[in-house]
Amino acid sequence: MVWVDLVTLLALLEFLAFGGLVGRARETYGVKAPATTGNAEFERYFRVQQNTLETLIVFLPALWIAAHYWSAAWMAAIGLVYLVGRVVYFRGYVSDPSARHIGYLLSIVPVVALILLGLAGIVRAMLG
Amino acid sequence: MVWVDLVTLLALLEFLAFGGLVGRARETYGVKAPATTGNAEFERYFRVQQNTLETLIVFLPALWIAAHYWSAAWMAAIGLVYLVGRVVYFRGYVSDPSARHIGYLLSIVPVVALILLGLAGIVRAMLG
Amino acid sequence: MVWVDLVTLLALLEFLAFGGLVGRARETYGVKAPATTGNAEFERYFRVQQNTLETLIVFLPALWIAAHYWSAAWMAAIGLVYLVGRVVYFRGYVSDPSARHIGYLLSIVPVVALILLGLAGIVRAMLG
Repeated sequence: MVWVDLVTLLALLEFLAFGGLVGRARETYGVKAPATTGNAEFERYFRVQQNTLETLIVFLPALWIAAHYWSAAWMAAIGLVYLVGRVVYFRGYVSDPSARHIGYLLSIVPVVALILLGLAGIVRAMLG
Repeated sequence: MVWVDLVTLLALLEFLAFGGLVGRARETYGVKAPATTGNAEFERYFRVQQNTLETLIVFLPALWIAAHYWSAAWMAAIGLVYLVGRVVYFRGYVSDPSARHIGYLLSIVPVVALILLGLAGIVRAMLG
Repeated sequence: MVWVDLVTLLALLEFLAFGGLVGRARETYGVKAPATTGNAEFERYFRVQQNTLETLIVFLPALWIAAHYWSAAWMAAIGLVYLVGRVVYFRGYVSDPSARHIGYLLSIVPVVALILLGLAGIVRAMLG
């Protein structure tokens, strides 16, 4: 499970880095806490982080369960696609919110794949 | 643990579905990203998803820990109540925010029950 | 793992308690659902809860992975620092948003420490 643990920790670090970029955007665009709105540029950074939060809570359990039923190394490899997809999503969204869809797909497709692999593994375990 | 894994994956899919409904509500009510406010109807969908995020991060670890100390199948059955409660919460909130409380209770009571069962299991393990 | 489970459940209860305080602040400051903005006092409570959500999703997996490679009791002890740090963060932020940084540090440093310990454990396992 060492690869799954590694991908998990990398996903956590990626999310922390996104949070750091939101904090920097707060300074850059002069949005004082507790506000999260009022500047459209800042809101892009903030929404990237929020959407990554929503994706991370699905990605991690899906990764762990899929890795329980199938090759953990392969599931970790699928997880790498998610990690890269999130970076693409970040860069797309910040440059132009309407350009966020490719990165979104690139990070949500591996998540859905892990869920489906998990379900397939459960069915196999029930039948086996 | 196969039932716990199944309920976990169903909870992830339910949350993804809520996210999909938020995306559709974005189109329906003309709320362009990165905005999340400005249309009260859209905000209902968005708040349901956000509240489900807040509940999911508590539900899943509570489920896994309770299943470690007690019958995993029974803990998964408690998890099913959460899954249904979230649907009731969604339908209630979207029809009228003041009608969200029943569904909220129906999903938070199983979560609290799982936490208490987890604590009871820990106490039993420490004494045993 | 009983101490790790205990710290996990305490972190969940702490987050639920923060959610309860947000609900009470909704009443106190007259912010009706689905709104989350419009009253700066309420927004402080809300942001504390949201930031705790963002931290919790990192804290828990980091705790579990670190506890897999090192003494679970010691990792749970690091987790206690996070729990206290979050209370300090809550009190600081609500009294004055610019006073939130000490509590933030007190809760993010143990999280980063757990991630680094997890990474060190993985390296050790790969070499060993």
